[in-house]
Amino acid sequence: MVGNNSNPMLELVRAMPEHLLAGYDIGCGQQPGRADDALVITGMGGSAISGALLAGVAADSSPVPILCSRDYDLPAAVGRRSLVIAISYSGNTEETLSGFNVARKRGCRLAVITSGGRLAAEAARARIPVVIVPTGLPPRAALGFLFGSLLALARSARVLRLTRKTVIAASTLLATRYETWRRKAGRLARALGDNLPVVYATSRLSEPVAERWRCQINENAKLLCHSSILPEHNHNEIVGMGAPYAMRSSHLFTLVDDSTHSRTRLRLKHLLGITRGTYRKATILAAEGESRLEQALSLVLLGDLLSIELAASREVDPLPVTRIEELKRRMARN
Amino acid sequence: MVGNNSNPMLELVRAMPEHLLAGYDIGCGQQPGRADDALVITGMGGSAISGALLAGVAADSSPVPILCSRDYDLPAAVGRRSLVIAISYSGNTEETLSGFNVARKRGCRLAVITSGGRLAAEAARARIPVVIVPTGLPPRAALGFLFGSLLALARSARVLRLTRKTVIAASTLLATRYETWRRKAGRLARALGDNLPVVYATSRLSEPVAERWRCQINENAKLLCHSSILPEHNHNEIVGMGAPYAMRSSHLFTLVDDSTHSRTRLRLKHLLGITRGTYRKATILAAEGESRLEQALSLVLLGDLLSIELAASREVDPLPVTRIEELKRRMARN
Repeated sequence: MVGNNSNPMLELVRAMPEHLLAGYDIGCGQQPGRADDALVITGMGGSAISGALLAGVAADSSPVPILCSRDYDLPAAVGRRSLVIAISYSGNTEETLSGFNVARKRGCRLAVITSGGRLAAEAARARIPVVIVPTGLPPRAALGFLFGSLLALARSARVLRLTRKTVIAASTLLATRYETWRRKAGRLARALGDNLPVVYATSRLSEPVAERWRCQINENAKLLCHSSILPEHNHNEIVGMGAPYAMRSSHLFTLVDDSTHSRTRLRLKHLLGITRGTYRKATILAAEGESRLEQALSLVLLGDLLSIELAASREVDPLPVTRIEELKRRMARN
Repeated sequence: MVGNNSNPMLELVRAMPEHLLAGYDIGCGQQPGRADDALVITGMGGSAISGALLAGVAADSSPVPILCSRDYDLPAAVGRRSLVIAISYSGNTEETLSGFNVARKRGCRLAVITSGGRLAAEAARARIPVVIVPTGLPPRAALGFLFGSLLALARSARVLRLTRKTVIAASTLLATRYETWRRKAGRLARALGDNLPVVYATSRLSEPVAERWRCQINENAKLLCHSSILPEHNHNEIVGMGAPYAMRSSHLFTLVDDSTHSRTRLRLKHLLGITRGTYRKATILAAEGESRLEQALSLVLLGDLLSIELAASREVDPLPVTRIEELKRRMARN
């Protein structure tokens, strides 16, 4: 298991609970407009995942659809009655700047979450509410700040009923369970070995969490990761498990939370029975906590820790994402 | 390359162009209500993909969000002003029946597309518009009928501007190009060999097409398939390509269409440069046709053909999906 002192990324993950609450409090300083017909989060990668997590947390209560737009433009349905929140940790993500400008041209209500960059400058000039989070982190390690402040904006926009107490409870759960989950992550990393990690979500709440797992395993451990969602998986991918070769050498991690439908739980049991022998091992991971927020974040933190343990076991540094930096350099030349 | 006569699934794929137009004409016989705040398609697997394709085709024009719900319930935002279209080819998909009943309880406007079963009976009893498509096909082979009739309902609901001429043009393109694409699919299958197929989408239009590829490769060829979407991929998965082992033995199929952003095209070029050596081969596949409908369906048909060629090269019968049937049997017992 990796040591804390030698591992800046692990230190950042350990800080997630306090970042979450700090982010929420910073976010409370801004009042975005209302989301009359949709709340749209435009952003990419480590910044966009906050929007996906919000959609999962609010799926059972939001009066309007929550859409994540990860491209240069926005769907046609996003218009003047939509609230668009542009999130770019660096403030210089070209897709997000483009999406932000499309939203401005369409007359959408807007708010911004960023640590600075062009996005902060352009939003300030246009007098758009801007939440400024602390700078200097890898975007994926800024989840606490970004997601925390997004929760505050979503509350203000009446998309999510939430009190500060709920956020405190989530922050406390994460801090309290941190060491236990870290040991668990170490065991999961050893169990995975050099097999392909496959993450299954089982609900709208765990769907974005599975995406977070995939991306954290990509970026921190420099590993491919495949994900899928039940019950949809049962209608197609169940047939694909085992060939050409990957699934015989794969380890399934299934994320289950309190909102997982009872029939989906039964599906999971039968699925594992029917496909036994097509994967190396399957581990079912249950969310902890009471609220949807706690449930989602408990699994997010476990996945973050797993990705760092996997990096350690592969002897790669979780911090640098060389290919992403190289791609940015090449894109900047054209 | 597989022969026609010996392969019922290939015959069904060949019939897709005529099924599409027939489905559209059947769908024109029903008038669903309006979609004031959202169009929601509830369905699973081979039935659900029509909703995802519609969302892609209409992304640049629909005045309301198009949501795909693939679970037992519906997001909270779906309500009385939403139009919910329940699609279950068999009419007996338990998740879809559940979603349909949730929509009824909420007072949503409703329409149904099915070949019969409980869904047809319950909808008729409740005097909900029902499109009845021909029975007796595997659901994934009924795409022409299901998607064609969904196009008609979406047009009637004013979510999509579309004329019969556009559908005829798409149908004609598919029929005209069929043999060429079949030969191309044969070449692609041989090039893939026993590597992992990885499908990249590059736009909102090609995103559901990549999903169709993945599911058809799952069901017809009984192969795992991994998919991802650009530009989001460039912010995380680019780092994961090449390890633990899958990507060194993977073949990338990238779907490009006219709506692919010029910066995303540039990203693709640089991506392939930066990650060269982490995959066996990369093939870029360009959509054909003029309209978004043609562009999407040209790539859908190519993927369907590829999945059948892959089944042939692996000497498996594309028709039976034994594990899905077994899961249904086990679920029916509880």
